[in-house]
Amino acid sequence: MCVNHEELIPQFRSYLKKMADYHSAIALLEWDARTHMPKNGIVGRSQAIATLSGEAFRMSVSEQMEQFLDQLGSHTEQLDPITLRLVEESQRTFDRSKKIPPDRYEAFVALTSEAQSVWEVARENNDFATFAPFLESIVDMTREFVDDWGYENHPYDTLLDQYEVGMTVSILDELFSGLRKDTVSLLNKIEAKPHIHTEILERFYDPEKQKAFSEFILREMGYDFQSGRLDETAHPFATGIAPGDVRITTHYYPHFFNAAMFGSIHEGGHALYEQGISSDLIGTPLHMGTSMGIHESQSRFWENTIGRSYEFWQCYYGDLQSYFPESLGDVTLDEFYSAINAVRPSLIRIEADEVTYNLHIMLRYEMEKGLIANTLSVKDLPELWHESMKTNLGVTPRNDAEGVLQDVHWSGGMFGYFPSYALGNIYAAQFTQAIERDLPDFKDRIKHGRLLEIREWLGQNIHQYGSLLKPAEILKQATGETIDAKPLVSYLQQKFSGLYHL
Amino acid sequence: MCVNHEELIPQFRSYLKKMADYHSAIALLEWDARTHMPKNGIVGRSQAIATLSGEAFRMSVSEQMEQFLDQLGSHTEQLDPITLRLVEESQRTFDRSKKIPPDRYEAFVALTSEAQSVWEVARENNDFATFAPFLESIVDMTREFVDDWGYENHPYDTLLDQYEVGMTVSILDELFSGLRKDTVSLLNKIEAKPHIHTEILERFYDPEKQKAFSEFILREMGYDFQSGRLDETAHPFATGIAPGDVRITTHYYPHFFNAAMFGSIHEGGHALYEQGISSDLIGTPLHMGTSMGIHESQSRFWENTIGRSYEFWQCYYGDLQSYFPESLGDVTLDEFYSAINAVRPSLIRIEADEVTYNLHIMLRYEMEKGLIANTLSVKDLPELWHESMKTNLGVTPRNDAEGVLQDVHWSGGMFGYFPSYALGNIYAAQFTQAIERDLPDFKDRIKHGRLLEIREWLGQNIHQYGSLLKPAEILKQATGETIDAKPLVSYLQQKFSGLYHL
Repeated sequence: MCVNHEELIPQFRSYLKKMADYHSAIALLEWDARTHMPKNGIVGRSQAIATLSGEAFRMSVSEQMEQFLDQLGSHTEQLDPITLRLVEESQRTFDRSKKIPPDRYEAFVALTSEAQSVWEVARENNDFATFAPFLESIVDMTREFVDDWGYENHPYDTLLDQYEVGMTVSILDELFSGLRKDTVSLLNKIEAKPHIHTEILERFYDPEKQKAFSEFILREMGYDFQSGRLDETAHPFATGIAPGDVRITTHYYPHFFNAAMFGSIHEGGHALYEQGISSDLIGTPLHMGTSMGIHESQSRFWENTIGRSYEFWQCYYGDLQSYFPESLGDVTLDEFYSAINAVRPSLIRIEADEVTYNLHIMLRYEMEKGLIANTLSVKDLPELWHESMKTNLGVTPRNDAEGVLQDVHWSGGMFGYFPSYALGNIYAAQFTQAIERDLPDFKDRIKHGRLLEIREWLGQNIHQYGSLLKPAEILKQATGETIDAKPLVSYLQQKFSGLYHL
Repeated sequence: MCVNHEELIPQFRSYLKKMADYHSAIALLEWDARTHMPKNGIVGRSQAIATLSGEAFRMSVSEQMEQFLDQLGSHTEQLDPITLRLVEESQRTFDRSKKIPPDRYEAFVALTSEAQSVWEVARENNDFATFAPFLESIVDMTREFVDDWGYENHPYDTLLDQYEVGMTVSILDELFSGLRKDTVSLLNKIEAKPHIHTEILERFYDPEKQKAFSEFILREMGYDFQSGRLDETAHPFATGIAPGDVRITTHYYPHFFNAAMFGSIHEGGHALYEQGISSDLIGTPLHMGTSMGIHESQSRFWENTIGRSYEFWQCYYGDLQSYFPESLGDVTLDEFYSAINAVRPSLIRIEADEVTYNLHIMLRYEMEKGLIANTLSVKDLPELWHESMKTNLGVTPRNDAEGVLQDVHWSGGMFGYFPSYALGNIYAAQFTQAIERDLPDFKDRIKHGRLLEIREWLGQNIHQYGSLLKPAEILKQATGETIDAKPLVSYLQQKFSGLYHL
C-alpha cells in the first residue's frame, strides 16, 4: 500500500491536537471543581468530565486511530523522531484502551469524579463509612480493568505500568526491600539521639504572608506566573491545563510552617517540568512528563534536595525572617534548618520527613497490592492502617482522617501511583549526583540563589524532552545509570549524619 | 415507517445531554478565561474552545441529528410537550447551522475568542487600531453568515432572530421610533430642571465592603451561593455553567458606587432566571432563558424596577449606611434615592440612567444595521460614534475607551444582541404591570424586603419555563399582551415626574 505521509502526518497531528484540547478542557473542569466550583455544581461537573473523557477515550481507540496507526506504523522508517514516538505512544494507549469497553471507562470517570468530592467531605468529617462504598466500587472496577488488560506475574504490574512504563512488583519489591533495610537502620540511629525541637514551626505564620513568600520563592525557582497561578485547596496539586497555563495549589495552616512552604516548592517543581517542555511537542500527548516517577523526581528534588538544604536557607533565611519577624526573629539559621529537617515518625505522608517518607509509601504499596490481588478488602483498611503504622513507624492515628482518609489518590482510582513518590526520591538522588558531576559548584550556586542555573540543567537534561524519551532513557542519558536506590541512601546518610551527629 | 419512540426519545435526549455537557465545558473555559486564566493561557484556551464549540456544532448538524429530527418530526402527535419543543428547537438550529460550513464556524469561534482578549487590552490602552482588524474580520464573517442564512427584508433581521425569535428591523424601527420620541420629550423636560447632585456616589466605597454588601443583597433576592459565585471582571456578566452552577461577576470602583451595586443586582437578575428553570429541562437546550430580550427583562427588572425603587431603599438604606458610615452617614434616604436615579446624558452604556439608556442602544442598533448592510465600515466607527453621541445624547467621548471600545459584544461577534437590552426594558415594564395586577401590594412587599415573594412570581410566570415557551408566549401568558413600549414610557414618565417635579 502506498501511503502519502505528507498528508497523513498532519491529519494524525490534527487528530491528536483535538484530543489534547479535550484533555485541556477536562483539566480545567477538574481544577475548577477543586478550587472555585459552588457545591451544587458537582453533579453537572461530573457528567461533563465523564462525557469529555469518554470522547477523548473513544478517539484513542477509534477506527480512525487504528487506520493512522496501521498506515504510519507500517512505514516507521519514513517518520521523523517525534511522529515515531507519537505512533508508539498512541499504539500503546490504543492497545490498553481497546480492552476496556467505553461505557465502563466513562462510568469509572464519573464514579471517581464524584468519589473525590465525597472523599473531601469524608476526610473533613473523619467518616470512612461514607467513603467506603465508593472505594469498594473503585477497587472492583480497577480489578476488572486489570483482568481486561492481563498481566504476566502480578496483577498490580499492569497498574504500575500506567504510571511508570516497565515497572513491576518484582523490581519494586527488591528496590524497596533494600531501601527499607537501610532506612530502618538510619532511623534507629537517629531515634537513639535527642529529638530536634520543631515547636518554632508551630508558631503563628500569617497565611497571607505565607502566600506572598511562597510566590517569592516560586519566582526565584523560575516559575512563570504569566503561565500559571497559585491557589489554595485541601490537598495540593499541580495541573497542566495548556502549554501556557500550568497551575499549582497549596494549603496554608496558620500554625504550621512546613505544609504551604514545602508544598508550594514541591508543586512548583512539577510545574517547572511542564513549563519547560519543548514547544515542538505542543498539541501532542508527548507534551507532558514522561512518567509519574520522573515527575515526582522534579518535585521532590526542589522540595528536599534544594528546598530543605542548608545552602538554600543560607540564601533565603534572612528574607524569611523579614516576612515573619515575630515568629522567626529569635531563631538562628541552624535552629531553623534543624527544625525543617527533623526526623520523627509521624502520621501524615505529605508532612513526613525525608527519612520516614518512603516508609509511608511502602505501607500504601503493600495495601494496594493486597486490594488488587483481592487478598485485602476495603472494610479492613482502617484497622490495617492503624496496625501497619504502629509496626512500621511506631505511631498510631487517632482517627481515619489522620489515617486511611488522608490521601486523595484512591478516590481518583489512582492505584499504582504511590510508588512514584519513592521512585521520585530515588531518581532525584541519581539526578543530583549527575548535577554535582556537571556543576561542581552546585551547592555554591544554591547558596547564592542561582536557582535558575539549576533549572537550566534540569530543562536541558529532563524537562525539554517531555515524553519524547522514556523514563529509563532520560535517566541513562542524564546520569549514565539505571535505576538504583544507593544514591538516595548515601544522600540520606550523609545529610542526617550531619544533622544528628551520628 | 414504524418508529419505536420508546427507544428513540431516550437516545435523542442522551444525544442532547452530550451536547449540553460540551456547552457546560465551553462556559467554564470562557468564564475562567475572563476571571482566573494566566495571560499565556490564551492561545491554548482559544483552541480548546474552538474545538469543543466545533464539536457541539457538528453534533447539531450531524446525520444522526437529521435522523432524529426526521423520525421524531414525522410523528409529532406522539410526542410529549417537552420532546416536541426539543424537536422544534433542534430543527431550527439544524436549519440555521446546516447553512454554515463547520470549518467557518470553528474559525469564527477561534477569532472571537482571541478578539475578546485583544479587546480587553485595547480598551485598557484606548487603542482602537489594535482591535480594528479583528472587528473587520468579525464583521466580514458575520456578513457571510447572513448571506448563507438568507433574509426577506433586511439582512440584519436574521441576526436579530438569533437572540429574539421573530424580531425584525421593521418591528424594531417602529417600537424604537415611538420610544425615542417619548424619551427625548421626557429628557427635554428633565434637562430644563436643576441637575440632581450625584457627588455622593463618588465618595470612597471600600471594594471589600462593596463586595460584602452585593453578596448581602444577592442573598436577599434569593440568589443561591451554593449554586453560584460572585467574582470580579472588567465587564460584568452572568453565565450558566451547569444547573447547579450559575456564576456572576461585577466590577468594583473605589470611587463610584453604582457600577458594582447595580451591576451585581443586574447580573443577579439573570442568574435568578437560570437558577429558577424547571429541573425537568436539565440536560436539554431548553434549560436556558427563552430569548436575550426576556433574559434582559429579568436583569433590568431587578436592577431598576426593584433596585432603583424608593421602596427598596426604604428597606435597605439603613443597612447600606452601616456598611459605609463615612460616605453615607450624612446622606438622607431621599438624597440617596435621587442620586442613584439622576438623569444625565453620559458616555458609558452600563452606567447610563434609565431614561437615556435606550438611546445608547438605538445608537448601537443603527451602527450594526449599517455594518451588516455594508453601508458603514469599521474604520469609520470611532468618528461616527463621536458624532452620534453628540447628536443623540449631547455628550462627546474623550477617547475610544469611553466610546466605541466600551462594550465587549462586538469582540464576541454578537451582532443583533444590543436591541435585547431595550427589549428587556420594554418587557420588564409590561411584566411589572402584570405583577401589580396579581400582587396589588407589590410596592409594599419591596418596602418590607419580601423580595423572595417577587422572585416567586417571576419563577412561576417566567423562570420555570426556560425555553419551553417562546418570548411572545411567555409575555402573552403572563401579561395578556403583545410587545408594547407604552408601559415603559408610562413607568418612566411617572417615576421621573416625581423625581424632577415635572
